[in-house]
Amino acid sequence: MRTLFKGGTIVNADATGKGDILVDGERIALIGENLDVTADKVVDATGKWVIPGGIDPHTHMELPFGGTFAKDTFESGSRAAAFGGTTTIIDFAVQPRGGTFRQGLDTWHEKADGRTCIDYGFHTIVSDMRDDLLPEMDALVDEGVTTFKLFTAYPGVFLSGDDAIFKAMKQTARNGGLILMHAENGPVIDVVAADLVAQGTTDPIGHGLARYSIFEAEATNRLIRLAQAAKAPVYFVHMSAKEALNVLRAAQNDGLPAFAETCPQYLFLGLDDLGNGFNGSKFVCSPPLRDRAAGHQEELWKGLVKGNLSAVGTDHCPFDFHGQKEMGRGDFRKIPNGLPGVEERLDLIHHGGVVEGRMTPNRFVEITSTGAARLFGLTKKGAVAVGYDADLVVYDPNRRHTLSASTHHMDVDYSCYEGLEVQGGSDVVMSRGKVIVDNGQWLGKPGDGKFVKRERSQFLR
Amino acid sequence: MRTLFKGGTIVNADATGKGDILVDGERIALIGENLDVTADKVVDATGKWVIPGGIDPHTHMELPFGGTFAKDTFESGSRAAAFGGTTTIIDFAVQPRGGTFRQGLDTWHEKADGRTCIDYGFHTIVSDMRDDLLPEMDALVDEGVTTFKLFTAYPGVFLSGDDAIFKAMKQTARNGGLILMHAENGPVIDVVAADLVAQGTTDPIGHGLARYSIFEAEATNRLIRLAQAAKAPVYFVHMSAKEALNVLRAAQNDGLPAFAETCPQYLFLGLDDLGNGFNGSKFVCSPPLRDRAAGHQEELWKGLVKGNLSAVGTDHCPFDFHGQKEMGRGDFRKIPNGLPGVEERLDLIHHGGVVEGRMTPNRFVEITSTGAARLFGLTKKGAVAVGYDADLVVYDPNRRHTLSASTHHMDVDYSCYEGLEVQGGSDVVMSRGKVIVDNGQWLGKPGDGKFVKRERSQFLR
Amino acid sequence: MRTLFKGGTIVNADATGKGDILVDGERIALIGENLDVTADKVVDATGKWVIPGGIDPHTHMELPFGGTFAKDTFESGSRAAAFGGTTTIIDFAVQPRGGTFRQGLDTWHEKADGRTCIDYGFHTIVSDMRDDLLPEMDALVDEGVTTFKLFTAYPGVFLSGDDAIFKAMKQTARNGGLILMHAENGPVIDVVAADLVAQGTTDPIGHGLARYSIFEAEATNRLIRLAQAAKAPVYFVHMSAKEALNVLRAAQNDGLPAFAETCPQYLFLGLDDLGNGFNGSKFVCSPPLRDRAAGHQEELWKGLVKGNLSAVGTDHCPFDFHGQKEMGRGDFRKIPNGLPGVEERLDLIHHGGVVEGRMTPNRFVEITSTGAARLFGLTKKGAVAVGYDADLVVYDPNRRHTLSASTHHMDVDYSCYEGLEVQGGSDVVMSRGKVIVDNGQWLGKPGDGKFVKRERSQFLR
Amino acid sequence: MRTLFKGGTIVNADATGKGDILVDGERIALIGENLDVTADKVVDATGKWVIPGGIDPHTHMELPFGGTFAKDTFESGSRAAAFGGTTTIIDFAVQPRGGTFRQGLDTWHEKADGRTCIDYGFHTIVSDMRDDLLPEMDALVDEGVTTFKLFTAYPGVFLSGDDAIFKAMKQTARNGGLILMHAENGPVIDVVAADLVAQGTTDPIGHGLARYSIFEAEATNRLIRLAQAAKAPVYFVHMSAKEALNVLRAAQNDGLPAFAETCPQYLFLGLDDLGNGFNGSKFVCSPPLRDRAAGHQEELWKGLVKGNLSAVGTDHCPFDFHGQKEMGRGDFRKIPNGLPGVEERLDLIHHGGVVEGRMTPNRFVEITSTGAARLFGLTKKGAVAVGYDADLVVYDPNRRHTLSASTHHMDVDYSCYEGLEVQGGSDVVMSRGKVIVDNGQWLGKPGDGKFVKRERSQFLR
Repeated sequence: MRTLFKGGTIVNADATGKGDILVDGERIALIGENLDVTADKVVDATGKWVIPGGIDPHTHMELPFGGTFAKDTFESGSRAAAFGGTTTIIDFAVQPRGGTFRQGLDTWHEKADGRTCIDYGFHTIVSDMRDDLLPEMDALVDEGVTTFKLFTAYPGVFLSGDDAIFKAMKQTARNGGLILMHAENGPVIDVVAADLVAQGTTDPIGHGLARYSIFEAEATNRLIRLAQAAKAPVYFVHMSAKEALNVLRAAQNDGLPAFAETCPQYLFLGLDDLGNGFNGSKFVCSPPLRDRAAGHQEELWKGLVKGNLSAVGTDHCPFDFHGQKEMGRGDFRKIPNGLPGVEERLDLIHHGGVVEGRMTPNRFVEITSTGAARLFGLTKKGAVAVGYDADLVVYDPNRRHTLSASTHHMDVDYSCYEGLEVQGGSDVVMSRGKVIVDNGQWLGKPGDGKFVKRERSQFLR
Repeated sequence: MRTLFKGGTIVNADATGKGDILVDGERIALIGENLDVTADKVVDATGKWVIPGGIDPHTHMELPFGGTFAKDTFESGSRAAAFGGTTTIIDFAVQPRGGTFRQGLDTWHEKADGRTCIDYGFHTIVSDMRDDLLPEMDALVDEGVTTFKLFTAYPGVFLSGDDAIFKAMKQTARNGGLILMHAENGPVIDVVAADLVAQGTTDPIGHGLARYSIFEAEATNRLIRLAQAAKAPVYFVHMSAKEALNVLRAAQNDGLPAFAETCPQYLFLGLDDLGNGFNGSKFVCSPPLRDRAAGHQEELWKGLVKGNLSAVGTDHCPFDFHGQKEMGRGDFRKIPNGLPGVEERLDLIHHGGVVEGRMTPNRFVEITSTGAARLFGLTKKGAVAVGYDADLVVYDPNRRHTLSASTHHMDVDYSCYEGLEVQGGSDVVMSRGKVIVDNGQWLGKPGDGKFVKRERSQFLR
Repeated sequence: MRTLFKGGTIVNADATGKGDILVDGERIALIGENLDVTADKVVDATGKWVIPGGIDPHTHMELPFGGTFAKDTFESGSRAAAFGGTTTIIDFAVQPRGGTFRQGLDTWHEKADGRTCIDYGFHTIVSDMRDDLLPEMDALVDEGVTTFKLFTAYPGVFLSGDDAIFKAMKQTARNGGLILMHAENGPVIDVVAADLVAQGTTDPIGHGLARYSIFEAEATNRLIRLAQAAKAPVYFVHMSAKEALNVLRAAQNDGLPAFAETCPQYLFLGLDDLGNGFNGSKFVCSPPLRDRAAGHQEELWKGLVKGNLSAVGTDHCPFDFHGQKEMGRGDFRKIPNGLPGVEERLDLIHHGGVVEGRMTPNRFVEITSTGAARLFGLTKKGAVAVGYDADLVVYDPNRRHTLSASTHHMDVDYSCYEGLEVQGGSDVVMSRGKVIVDNGQWLGKPGDGKFVKRERSQFLR
Repeated sequence: MRTLFKGGTIVNADATGKGDILVDGERIALIGENLDVTADKVVDATGKWVIPGGIDPHTHMELPFGGTFAKDTFESGSRAAAFGGTTTIIDFAVQPRGGTFRQGLDTWHEKADGRTCIDYGFHTIVSDMRDDLLPEMDALVDEGVTTFKLFTAYPGVFLSGDDAIFKAMKQTARNGGLILMHAENGPVIDVVAADLVAQGTTDPIGHGLARYSIFEAEATNRLIRLAQAAKAPVYFVHMSAKEALNVLRAAQNDGLPAFAETCPQYLFLGLDDLGNGFNGSKFVCSPPLRDRAAGHQEELWKGLVKGNLSAVGTDHCPFDFHGQKEMGRGDFRKIPNGLPGVEERLDLIHHGGVVEGRMTPNRFVEITSTGAARLFGLTKKGAVAVGYDADLVVYDPNRRHTLSASTHHMDVDYSCYEGLEVQGGSDVVMSRGKVIVDNGQWLGKPGDGKFVKRERSQFLR
């Protein structure tokens, strides 16, 4: 099967230029000007960009949380991702407390294998960092699950002590893996949250009020020092607070291999969204949406533009407002944490980044695809380059459309961006050589996506 | 004329992968795996990298300085550059004091046109920033000379007052040009230098002692504030001091469009090289080589790795030790300022950067080629990409060789790196479709290089 | 003549306690609990504080500026100061351009000697920093005029080049004097101001718009670097901008002997006061009043509380609105720069500092008296201590009163704080042993004040 | 009983001047020039300073630690303190784990009451921060035990969780108390220490190697954020690391009420002292002595000079080398933590601070006495002022003497400063009106010292 992309402007992280692309089988075989070759299928990209398929390094399909499950399955969630121009996700396999990493991995393979529409990798969520599991980390790194997420939040569920985190970091310093951190001081947040509830604040806004941005900054600093002591790199998921970003900047200025992603919700939504009574539950995620007036959003944009932030993940973890979010009526602490977002990522970043003049198209590609590929060892993804996986998106930088639950493909009963008009859209999406979205038409199927064994990361930049 | 590069690993700033490259005429026509095409010439790149030709954004061929001229002509200098894997230079056309920018440009075109072996662009050196010249800046930007270098050093020769610099910055904020700055507080340095001479320090070491690193940091901060007030970007040439880099980092953290290059000499040489009696004159350049113990070098490397520094220029400005440097015997202030270096740039950065484990090959490409291309509007250079100029280097990352005046191609009677063994070398160098260096053999000729009309820069990252 | 202060609470910078004070002649002779001594006069301080008389290190009596003179003479201005609890001023003697420092000093002695009601010292304003004047600096330091103010603003009037400033700093590093700096980048401000006028902004607001806070920060940083290079201390007069304060903080963290004062107007007034048509001219001073929303005021308070700012001066330089300020109608650049304020200093700082809960009474005393005494070599002033000059104020921390031109004692036709009610007032003011203000009654006379020969400063803290 | 100090120079934190002092009973009754009064005893201070008695805010007399007790009793330790010019100590009463604060306090009163030779107060060491103890904090604050020390080190012994610390801070925000913190990340240090032992490093040097300075900085930052969130002040005991000081500086620049002390050992001793086999055990304390080459000492001096550090404590906690330190032979983790030092504090700070030119005599007084008085609510101490406790020291700033275990008065078999010659010594020491040291002669007795009920602190500066 050969597919020819004609007439587009290829936008990579480092260069922009006209060019035709021939895909042969699953890979990019040829790039040239006005290619004169035969193909089974021709995709007309005239007037549009051809970009590497988006990589979302942070999703939670079917995640069990607080007595329920994130609504999107690997099938529905990966299909929605594809509609939004994302062709690879890295999801989180959760170690059962008291169990092994591999048990978590096996469970997640069961959920995902044969059901996912685009390529996927796994990070491991460490629920219980015991010394006896350290050797298993080495094995997983060798098997392409090179990254381990630990938490300083959620005591009794996911929280690891500083000593355990430090040991895990030291292990990755040896085995080439990478520790991912959810950085918030959970125990202290829980004190504030309990005080709020005791004082009568039980609505979702309490979630935002309890989780001070300085608690994220504190944990970020703590983890950077642990990583520094362990001589290990560290990656912060879902950075949301300017104070945390300042900590990161200082570490990077010191030459430390510290990295971070942010998420679209922290660039577009705010603490005020958590208001409006229980409706705010739709916007409950951790870290929480931040006070707009405090300037977090613009700082995060600066971080993306200047390279302090390497990637944009979504932390996609959708719960229906009806039936799921409602579990937290009367106590914001019981609202399942998470937002839908895997579908809107590229368009939101394109709109806020490129359309609003903050960044070049190249940087847009870098933070939505190339950056994650490089950091997470996806050595055949993240660029429109010969020999690379044919994960390609024909992106129309001019098409305007309106985000809505009535039109999105995620399996959740609301949109965080309901009614927001954005400029930019994925017209044609190819996953490893197969066109799975063609101008709104779904051509993919469960199982099109394969598990990707990842290489160790390159952290030298 | 078609040339086929077979079997190499293409290393771009954003991706690495095996691929063959077909060059047709002056441009890259086709990239593919195992290309089965006819060509007039085949270059075997097996086991080697194919990288975009180096771009040196800072050279001074035939520069008049202190009563003499930089020794390398555009012919000899550009030939040496090519031997070192550099296929584009941006040289500085000097406005005569009292005259116009165009007069300088005309003079430099006379020197360069028809004589240069690789492509070249011009920055304008502003000797005398008068209000009546502001409109001429607009014209030059439109004509592809988009960048203007001003000085806070060399009073009476190049120094511009803060008010004049500010006006020039405001003009570029309007016309899309870019101000380049030599940032040192020259008037104060001159006081210190005079004191040193008065106290009997007349040897070259005095040059290094007089020019405190904090005088560079001061001027850097001053110019960043002027640029901020003018809402204009600013680019610092030859950043040498960690204190200046810290100022730059702070500005970038604040989201300001401030950029800088450093030079190989600041990464490899030190204040001690200015000692050893008059021999130190070989190492007299401004800013001066810095005290190794103070840690400037490692900070500059960090800046290159983390992206605070966008490019590596050479400030190539060679004077023979015999006859030229000797003009400053007895008074270091009379030593012509400048070092040779256009030829060793890539190999030094490869060695110190990649071989010594500080950066990825991709980042090496970015700082020696892509970064300058993007900042200086060389929209068809800086990447191995279809449609781009066929400026290509077959780079052997394993070849070891020794730097020496006895083997280099620069027209100057000494080498700053005499006897230094480095790993990495340019085996084959193609300039706009023509192989000009083939494993040590010179195939180019004066006039192969063309003046490049540059676009406005993209500063959003 | 012996005066006994009975029943007060003595508030010094370091301690608070009940105590009676016997003044014998010009000095404090005895401090004790319930002193049982005879005295010619008894001052009842029951329920009030006894504090060291205020020291205003920054006044401009009768200053020639822009074709007119600051309205207050040494007589009227010093009388007003006394009513406000200030018993020492340090005024600025202006070197005539082309002349010597001593000529300026002689002129100012003529103005002040025999006419001033409280003690006074002189700083020298350097209008024209020539090499031949450097030895004269040594002489002045020996004679008790230990401080020299230079400017980076007012080109053609007061501005000194960086090289001249550096030489002056080096001279003080040798002779124990201290350089005071007006830190704003004047030449660049003048470009912005000219642009504003050209665009039709001629009202006083233009004064505030033209003088960006980052231009103050820039100059502050520049001067700190020059002082660092000269190994000399430096003191910034009238610091107004948070960005400048941040520069100062960084220098102090580095251990550099850099110091600063701020003025009440920067703590209480704002850019908005410069609006309201030409009425804003009343508030024209340099640096200008800053944008309240940008948070400069709270940062300056923090600087006072934490010790980054060592003193509060007033920059008292009053011009009548009618007849003087009006010289700038139609062009804000022609408005004489300066505000009245010598009288309100203590009460404003007490109100904003102590009453509003920002600082202890001890710190209030430190920044209004002790700090300036220590920095400016007034070794017998700044504390209620045996052997010290009997400059004493019975201060009522509870008395509320309203500031107004109708009641103030300064010779100027408006008040910057018209109608503002403040808490705290000087009930009895003694200058070197003589009560000159007694509950609103004036008992002093011209010539009561003597010129104070100052010692070299102690900069080790 | 009336004592007259004649002819001395009174040095306070804010002023210096000649003056005689009459002490009547326990307080300073009169200060005057050439006092002509009768007295029971006359102390000749001619040519010397009279300073407020030193206040050591950090001692551990008879502390149980690691199976033994700090050697000095309240009697021997307070006597040694007095010989060194210190007239007040604040010791730490340890809550028994599972018990109440009051139980600890009762135990410490038993140890101290009637046995201590100088005045003393108590901080409470919190071993076990339970919610049910929060109300007891209020009671203790009212009773003059206003300060509570918590730890992020020593898991299982003293460590409190972040949530518990946060609750304690919130309680002090309400009751006016103050949290003191031992800031090191103990759990992570223990991992490093175990690794070192596992790798064969069992000598005392391991103690210094395991406790990275960044672990102190991390905890310092964490606690500052917790205090910020709790709107409470915080005080760091024994700050030793430049990285921690930088964290403190940043917090103070932000206006936060964060304070710290350092100790003489961190200003004079280094990591190298921990070497030399088991002899290094003499120097085992926590935080550990730091690497001299890294510049911690000079940064701490800067912090003292510039006011970032408010006081100097000793953390006096002596263990004999023979019999006590030896418990840790073969495993540095078993060496009792602590050094002797209560006696040498003033002379070391005078020597390093004043004699070596870093600070004024006034600042020396401030950091050895006034600062602690103000922070810890000793409202009648810390100054030579009428009505204040007659805690006075006739200090000879010129006397040179040599520190040695053979001459010191502490009950411990070694000196950390054996053979070090220092300049400055306490000739006469008066404690609340009684001369207890007279030129080397001991005139005091157990029980001369009284427990001091402290006021709430003033934190506004």
